[in-house]
Amino acid sequence: MSSLVGELESIVGPVGCLHRSEELLVYECDGLTLHSAKPTAVVFPRSRDEVCSVVSVCRAHGVPFVPRGAGTGLSGGAVANDAAVIVECSRMNRILEINAEDRYAVVEPGVINADLSRQTAKHGLFYAPDPSSQLACTIGGNVAENSGGPHTLKYGTTTNHVLAIELVLPDASVVQLGSSTGFEPGYDLVGAVVGSEGTLGIVTQVTVRLAPIPERIETLLVSFPDVVTACRAVGGIIEAGLIPAALEIIDRRTIAAVEASVYAAGLPADAGAVLIVELDGAAVALPRQLERVKQICVRAGAAQVEVAADESERQRFWRARKGAFGAMGRLAPDLYVHDAVVPRSRLPEVLDEICAIGDRHGLILSNVFHAGDGNLHPNISFDRRDPEVLEHVMAAGSEILECCVRAGGVITGEHGVGNEKREFLHLVFSEADMEAMKRFRSCFDPDSVCNPGKIFPTTRFCAESNPKARGYDRVGFE
Amino acid sequence: MSSLVGELESIVGPVGCLHRSEELLVYECDGLTLHSAKPTAVVFPRSRDEVCSVVSVCRAHGVPFVPRGAGTGLSGGAVANDAAVIVECSRMNRILEINAEDRYAVVEPGVINADLSRQTAKHGLFYAPDPSSQLACTIGGNVAENSGGPHTLKYGTTTNHVLAIELVLPDASVVQLGSSTGFEPGYDLVGAVVGSEGTLGIVTQVTVRLAPIPERIETLLVSFPDVVTACRAVGGIIEAGLIPAALEIIDRRTIAAVEASVYAAGLPADAGAVLIVELDGAAVALPRQLERVKQICVRAGAAQVEVAADESERQRFWRARKGAFGAMGRLAPDLYVHDAVVPRSRLPEVLDEICAIGDRHGLILSNVFHAGDGNLHPNISFDRRDPEVLEHVMAAGSEILECCVRAGGVITGEHGVGNEKREFLHLVFSEADMEAMKRFRSCFDPDSVCNPGKIFPTTRFCAESNPKARGYDRVGFE
Repeated sequence: MSSLVGELESIVGPVGCLHRSEELLVYECDGLTLHSAKPTAVVFPRSRDEVCSVVSVCRAHGVPFVPRGAGTGLSGGAVANDAAVIVECSRMNRILEINAEDRYAVVEPGVINADLSRQTAKHGLFYAPDPSSQLACTIGGNVAENSGGPHTLKYGTTTNHVLAIELVLPDASVVQLGSSTGFEPGYDLVGAVVGSEGTLGIVTQVTVRLAPIPERIETLLVSFPDVVTACRAVGGIIEAGLIPAALEIIDRRTIAAVEASVYAAGLPADAGAVLIVELDGAAVALPRQLERVKQICVRAGAAQVEVAADESERQRFWRARKGAFGAMGRLAPDLYVHDAVVPRSRLPEVLDEICAIGDRHGLILSNVFHAGDGNLHPNISFDRRDPEVLEHVMAAGSEILECCVRAGGVITGEHGVGNEKREFLHLVFSEADMEAMKRFRSCFDPDSVCNPGKIFPTTRFCAESNPKARGYDRVGFE
Repeated sequence: MSSLVGELESIVGPVGCLHRSEELLVYECDGLTLHSAKPTAVVFPRSRDEVCSVVSVCRAHGVPFVPRGAGTGLSGGAVANDAAVIVECSRMNRILEINAEDRYAVVEPGVINADLSRQTAKHGLFYAPDPSSQLACTIGGNVAENSGGPHTLKYGTTTNHVLAIELVLPDASVVQLGSSTGFEPGYDLVGAVVGSEGTLGIVTQVTVRLAPIPERIETLLVSFPDVVTACRAVGGIIEAGLIPAALEIIDRRTIAAVEASVYAAGLPADAGAVLIVELDGAAVALPRQLERVKQICVRAGAAQVEVAADESERQRFWRARKGAFGAMGRLAPDLYVHDAVVPRSRLPEVLDEICAIGDRHGLILSNVFHAGDGNLHPNISFDRRDPEVLEHVMAAGSEILECCVRAGGVITGEHGVGNEKREFLHLVFSEADMEAMKRFRSCFDPDSVCNPGKIFPTTRFCAESNPKARGYDRVGFE
């Protein structure tokens, strides 16, 4: 082992390699604290060549490796199963090119999401995908998870904005996929790598599309008696042919938690749900859309409609939304942020059922979600030290996913499968579907050395290290 | 062979199987008439189960197979290399579901592109990708080629509108990829199948996203002294932060050909180029955008700006654009429609060079292109019966592709690699890139039985049938 660490240090320098137990502590899990595993080491390469060398050294020592961004992921995707070496990309954080004329930027994977838009703003351009963690999460991590965010409805997810990728394969060779033009001959492997959760290789460069900053933004905060009524308003807005930039719903329990926290935004205390509607586009077009949205909301049963008078008020509305998880996290030692998708039209019935599931298990369950996409985030606040409670949390999670799938949905929207959802893949995939996915993985990573055990567990590498870490059992729960 | 035909007939019925030499003639090539090969038979299955049975029978007889839509493709992708059986999907042409609430449709692969939008119009929705051949081409073919069209600039290509796919794999098993919600756990194999040119299996069902029909459309026809000036106007429009639905340029030679044909649209005879600008969106927002575009065009050197007064005038402008290839086809027995992409900002210099290449080879070369995407279509009108001319045509084609790649572009935009571009892949791919693509193909089609020889030729199946058909030489050129 010390020979491995020595070789890694010789590549990335002594400050670029952590290997003492106490240094590794924060790298034992990501945003899903229920899953944890100790890495052998954490390395911080500064370049593609260093990444290649790290991969080669790991291979030579028979140790797997895991790419990692800011560790904000919520499905355990960045956890080092099988005592892997974590390849942490925060030192590769340069914006290499901003091409305003052709509207793209070339960045290293460690660039922080919000920093990119900050840098491109002077050209009147922005990078559209804005996950709630955008002040911390990295473009590399966004690529791994195909991150969405509140503006997915209009702008799509990461995959709609990635033009090209440089990828170090698990055999340490380097491939260039895609082109800055957005066109590519052959197979769309850029699309296949985006959302592959770090299982196909290590991304060392990303070319992203930039979009013109909209001329004007209007943001509404609408309160409703309950979540189901808010969902009906969302349906009405869509049916009217409008495409808002965002349609976000926060439920009663979350409103209370937010208002009791540092994220307090003056949300109406008596509301059963609030809906944030954001419209963007040509300044002259927005007033009529705004009126239309107001009418639809009032007709659906809105109690109150506020329109942000200025940017600071808009930020106040969004503070409530983006701080929702943080606020919920204060209610109990642990927070399980779920992630599933249903067809938008099925939201009302599914939410009813999800709330019933939470009640049946006696859990503090709240809902904050991207209503426009049908992308739900049921949150469960709990204390894992009580094994009985933990059992209820896990059972409720299963029932929620099953309910979403029954409604024609899928088991993950933007958080990925990681360690968390492996056992639920059978809900949406047939044996043949799974087989195709596994074969695809094997064609990039035949020896399962790259982020082992994630998404589609394969068995080759497993037996040599820690068989338990690869199985379908819930690993590292203690 | 007769046993193969008999078995195929027993699956699809006698009228669903062509095998006599004279019946096969029109299936020997697609829109790229330079490449041709005789299929063993052409079958017209009516269902997924028939497709599975056809695939099984072909496998049992050791005969490869090729999925085919309307045969409008321009890279020889639907040609039956290795005496394959063509699986023609025109009898699978049902629209299975239109879900207006969740904005998607489920269709069989043989549905004609334009028919789909016609059927969804009553819901205020449309299917955005509109290749020039949309009155004939099918959704299945669009999926195979990741078809674009004049509205790619704003709406993207087919891949941006496909939510889910049912695919019969080369081993006759069936996989379901993606979901109607637009989210999917695991790898984005929907994205990988779109644009795979029928090499990964046979698509038997497609779920596509529908978009709200824009409230209003404004279309401008702007004439310029030359193509380069028109390109500068395009750059100015993009720089102004506008995202028109379309930015299409037609050059002098094409204008003359169009005006001498049934597509005559009253284009200004003295123009060196015309630019079609289409704006769509909220009615109230368009007048100002229209003014802005006019100003930019005039400042760039426009000679004349016409705005379509009504839908029939708009159709007249588009008739010129969509009829351009047909009009050019009248100038000589053969027309080679090229397809390449360059960064938008490099258009002026690249067009200059492409025209110089045409002149150097003494060819009738014209340009009609999606300027907003940098997607070029240099057309060469010629007579293939003159071998010397044919040599110049091929040499000019190579030089054009090399020129585009030097400018940071790629060798195909929306026509695919097919048989046509295989020998040019080395211009954009390293050995490692090619290897990754080939491995990917092999994981779906390890025996190279599905559309053999296309894109990334693999060798396994080859030796048994017709080695020449798989190589990098220009096949079927006779």
